[in-house]
Amino acid sequence: MEVVILAAGQGKRMRSMLPKVLQPIAGKPMLAHVVDAARALSVQRICVVYGHGGEVVRERLDAPDLAWARQEPQLGTGHAVQQALPHLSDAESALVLYGDVPLIAEATLRRLAEAAGGSRLALLTVELDNPTGYGRILRDRSGRVTRIVEEKDASDAERKVREVNTGILVAPVARLRDWLGRIGNDNAQGEYYLTDIIGLAVADDVEVVTVQPGAAWETLGVNSKLQLAELERLHQGNIARRLLEDGVTLIDPARIDVRGELVCGRDVEIDVNCVFEGRVELADGVRIGANCVLRNAVVGAGSRIAPFSHVEDSTMGEGCVVGPYARTRPGTVLGKEVHVGNFVEIKNSRIEDQSKANHLAYVGDADVGRRVNIGAGTITCNYDGANKFRSVIEDDAFIGSDTQLVAPVRVGRGATLGAGTTLTKDAPPEQLTVSRAKQLSIAGWKRPEKKR
Amino acid sequence: MEVVILAAGQGKRMRSMLPKVLQPIAGKPMLAHVVDAARALSVQRICVVYGHGGEVVRERLDAPDLAWARQEPQLGTGHAVQQALPHLSDAESALVLYGDVPLIAEATLRRLAEAAGGSRLALLTVELDNPTGYGRILRDRSGRVTRIVEEKDASDAERKVREVNTGILVAPVARLRDWLGRIGNDNAQGEYYLTDIIGLAVADDVEVVTVQPGAAWETLGVNSKLQLAELERLHQGNIARRLLEDGVTLIDPARIDVRGELVCGRDVEIDVNCVFEGRVELADGVRIGANCVLRNAVVGAGSRIAPFSHVEDSTMGEGCVVGPYARTRPGTVLGKEVHVGNFVEIKNSRIEDQSKANHLAYVGDADVGRRVNIGAGTITCNYDGANKFRSVIEDDAFIGSDTQLVAPVRVGRGATLGAGTTLTKDAPPEQLTVSRAKQLSIAGWKRPEKKR
Amino acid sequence: MEVVILAAGQGKRMRSMLPKVLQPIAGKPMLAHVVDAARALSVQRICVVYGHGGEVVRERLDAPDLAWARQEPQLGTGHAVQQALPHLSDAESALVLYGDVPLIAEATLRRLAEAAGGSRLALLTVELDNPTGYGRILRDRSGRVTRIVEEKDASDAERKVREVNTGILVAPVARLRDWLGRIGNDNAQGEYYLTDIIGLAVADDVEVVTVQPGAAWETLGVNSKLQLAELERLHQGNIARRLLEDGVTLIDPARIDVRGELVCGRDVEIDVNCVFEGRVELADGVRIGANCVLRNAVVGAGSRIAPFSHVEDSTMGEGCVVGPYARTRPGTVLGKEVHVGNFVEIKNSRIEDQSKANHLAYVGDADVGRRVNIGAGTITCNYDGANKFRSVIEDDAFIGSDTQLVAPVRVGRGATLGAGTTLTKDAPPEQLTVSRAKQLSIAGWKRPEKKR
Repeated sequence: MEVVILAAGQGKRMRSMLPKVLQPIAGKPMLAHVVDAARALSVQRICVVYGHGGEVVRERLDAPDLAWARQEPQLGTGHAVQQALPHLSDAESALVLYGDVPLIAEATLRRLAEAAGGSRLALLTVELDNPTGYGRILRDRSGRVTRIVEEKDASDAERKVREVNTGILVAPVARLRDWLGRIGNDNAQGEYYLTDIIGLAVADDVEVVTVQPGAAWETLGVNSKLQLAELERLHQGNIARRLLEDGVTLIDPARIDVRGELVCGRDVEIDVNCVFEGRVELADGVRIGANCVLRNAVVGAGSRIAPFSHVEDSTMGEGCVVGPYARTRPGTVLGKEVHVGNFVEIKNSRIEDQSKANHLAYVGDADVGRRVNIGAGTITCNYDGANKFRSVIEDDAFIGSDTQLVAPVRVGRGATLGAGTTLTKDAPPEQLTVSRAKQLSIAGWKRPEKKR
Repeated sequence: MEVVILAAGQGKRMRSMLPKVLQPIAGKPMLAHVVDAARALSVQRICVVYGHGGEVVRERLDAPDLAWARQEPQLGTGHAVQQALPHLSDAESALVLYGDVPLIAEATLRRLAEAAGGSRLALLTVELDNPTGYGRILRDRSGRVTRIVEEKDASDAERKVREVNTGILVAPVARLRDWLGRIGNDNAQGEYYLTDIIGLAVADDVEVVTVQPGAAWETLGVNSKLQLAELERLHQGNIARRLLEDGVTLIDPARIDVRGELVCGRDVEIDVNCVFEGRVELADGVRIGANCVLRNAVVGAGSRIAPFSHVEDSTMGEGCVVGPYARTRPGTVLGKEVHVGNFVEIKNSRIEDQSKANHLAYVGDADVGRRVNIGAGTITCNYDGANKFRSVIEDDAFIGSDTQLVAPVRVGRGATLGAGTTLTKDAPPEQLTVSRAKQLSIAGWKRPEKKR
Repeated sequence: MEVVILAAGQGKRMRSMLPKVLQPIAGKPMLAHVVDAARALSVQRICVVYGHGGEVVRERLDAPDLAWARQEPQLGTGHAVQQALPHLSDAESALVLYGDVPLIAEATLRRLAEAAGGSRLALLTVELDNPTGYGRILRDRSGRVTRIVEEKDASDAERKVREVNTGILVAPVARLRDWLGRIGNDNAQGEYYLTDIIGLAVADDVEVVTVQPGAAWETLGVNSKLQLAELERLHQGNIARRLLEDGVTLIDPARIDVRGELVCGRDVEIDVNCVFEGRVELADGVRIGANCVLRNAVVGAGSRIAPFSHVEDSTMGEGCVVGPYARTRPGTVLGKEVHVGNFVEIKNSRIEDQSKANHLAYVGDADVGRRVNIGAGTITCNYDGANKFRSVIEDDAFIGSDTQLVAPVRVGRGATLGAGTTLTKDAPPEQLTVSRAKQLSIAGWKRPEKKR
């Protein structure tokens, strides 16, 4: 099978500089959702018909398995499919999809392709409670599709039909080529409508079969930011339902956002209002507190991320306790049972098992051993204004509060740094290292007074 | 036209010390919403009838264009309007509004005033699926309003009428004055009901016309905190819809709160669970991350506010990167491409283009030049316990980590401060300035041991 | 009355290692909700029938007033109740409840018990719009219950009955003992169904009466994480409604989570997306900002918790201002009008009236007097790697920025610590104490350059 995806629409009602098909659902362009659905069918070829702002679309989504057909000017859906014909083989059938109908499901498309069976025209239709505005599917007494009638051309009786056209169809390419050459643009918009091929198929005695999607929302299109938001919530609701079915505990399924892939082990619990981006893996028994944001993260079994944490491109071993208000930035690798506390930032650092940085610290470009205690207010001075350097803190070191490690610098195994130390040279193992001025008190000193 | 706003109700069911009409929707007292709707009509005069807790109401909302009439005791809606009569001119018509019906729309009121046309009584009515509890609009065969019947007095047939009285009306002041003098209080509550003027109008052959609001929720009143919350969400839903129609991308329209005015450029994206207060301007391409709170802010084009940021009375230039966990307090002014990172607080400070304060810092009462790097843990000591002083950091300075600037103090252009410096005097340009004790290690030192 | 709670179900569909009845609603095991509802009736005895994973259940919830009966193997609900019989007195009636029907209300159970009246069988039934899947209540012409028919055995006419069995019932123990000995397991599942006693009661001329719950959701059971989430939201919605009825202002009733007991005074306002755990008391006029998490807290009148604050096992006096981004940990006790600002952590410390710690500080194991100003970046070094010590800061002290208090240490009344001081010995009252190296500038110093 071949796939044609129509992605040339302007989308003026989106009121955006970004072409409509690049508008994201769950952080991914709508068109990419459709392309991925098509890919899942393991088809021959996927041809994207682009137009308005098309170069941007192509740049953003180009891939070796995609062919691109430019539609310029844009003279309707039939005309759009016609632009793809040079890429399609007459020996195949073609599935027509839409770049602004992003939630179409693979399973539905498989059933549609099966129904088409190589020689039939298979049309995806849907029963709507309120079909107003859609083209109605008309059938003869035996139930065979005879044609599609648009709202404005429909009689009162026809308007009562609740089965409507979604525009998604499969047809033999050779036939499609023939029909598209024959449809006209003698209508109010002066456009060539793909829909018109149905009548030609019936006239040519090609059997027209219909398939209904797994759910009506699969066929919803996006023409405005309101519809984009509605589909976003629908999609997120579906993801939440799947997580629940997999046994994940969600405190509020209406308050979780997954923009990518969230893989959960057993007995994972996710509190309200969390956001997951990219690929996030949560192992057995992981608990994510309220209001966390995780992006590209691997969290080991039994670890707990407390509220207000922001985790990005980070890996954590088992039994870690992170947050509240922990920020781990790209390149953070935590061993087992590591504690990262409030107002602590970790970046491009490896922290081994059972080490702790519990309060108000910045650990950047550091290699931290096991059982290290990083005191409150500790800062790795990894940047001299021109270059970045690493700090090394060996096992069992104790870093006193408010200490600065001026990298490159090494704290030896079991070393202790006194509070307030500015460490500019290596600290030898097991010893206490300090840099500290004498404490003085000034008797008779007067406090400043409030000026008028 | 003149406007009378009834705002004397006690609101016992609110269970609050605050008078009902001061209870806020979107952070603004309900009465202020109604006053603003009236103001939008550019009317002659707005007279607020106050009563319970009235002095507080008057103090909070007093303005030169408002007249105030005290209703004491409170003997019903008719009696309330009567208190306003001394302020009203017989040559005008009067629009009667309610301080606890906050979402009434200007467009609806305009249509109502037009329908009244100076000599008619125009009544705002609404069709409800479930009219239980409301006064039903009764009409004669020709469709003319004959009277309003209250629930308890209605026959079974009358109870089936779904068109109900909202209480909002426009009537000629002279007529109103006459009718209000004639209505009685011979009812269960012993109150004078404004509704009773309808019967008098009909008897006097004054034409009674009806207008329906743009949406039924415009006429909802608030008598409990539950209803207050329901109207809050309705109002927020309306605001979200308007933002979407303007092309703003909202990841979840049910999770945004706007309490004031949110003005957005093109391609603005707002992630889940953000709160906007006061006047907030977001220029083209601004992205606001999840869980941010912004109050009175101007954010320049292309700037990005990362999650968990709290921005208050601040101005940011183009291309800034702020957060996560950034807090900018009143008087923050950022130039272009300024970076403010995690756990950084800025207050009453100006930071020029391309400067950075990326981690754990407090910048208060400071003037920071261009391309300045403020290291992690830097603190401006702006307060000596009695007075506040400013710190000045000139262009291209590099402030080492964990440095304290004891204001008033100046860091010269291109100066470098070593990590951990306590700066009590000005730092000369281009030079390295430090205050640092010698680093010592103590061999043979023994770590403290755990006491039993 | 006696109570039997069936809590032996496996709950495979929960896909969890935790037994189903321990899955939490509002942070409390479902079974504990049911036990608490039973306790509220002040009954004779509560017998929990446990089975799968039962030891864990018993360990988690054991209490002096609970009897435990093991059901092994599990042969149906009738068999389950039979295991409880040895604990029950023939002189009493028994109420049968379910560990996975957590929201059953005390008021409903009281009405059920009254209806039973000691000699009748009282059945809790509910009218459902869609009764599919439930056992229907069949009645004779006079309205008396004749039997319960299961979905699969029901005729078309019977399927139309919308009154269904909830399984909750009260019956005299002696009768129950007799009936349970007589029911069989001749059905598809080979199980003994408690439902079958209804037929025996009718045959024995025991009057069967029915009671309907206050709300249908009271009788909803949980068999999947989806249902668990649905009941969580229902329960939270109920809690929110109760708070609103009590006069609390909730900006969004759909975005508050209460897991425990939230006690509010007058004119309390709670902004969006807050979480309350354990017992939280908010006195008159307290305002909680957006996105706060409070657990076991007492907040004094007029105090304000700003957004993103995390309060745990803490007590605050009147007029405190806490947050944004404040974290108070267990043992925090604040006096009146204390200010705790952004990125400040307090732990196991007492801070007296009118003291302030406004920025980036860690105050742990400290006793702080009145009117103390704790500067930005102050850290109490309470841990030497082995033991914890206390810091004492007396009234009116001024702690300069970025100061470390190496505990045990005392700052005398009215003392001032200079910025950046490392305090290792007590600071005398009224004096200025510093530890500070001389500030030096190095002329001719060259900045590092970017390496390639």
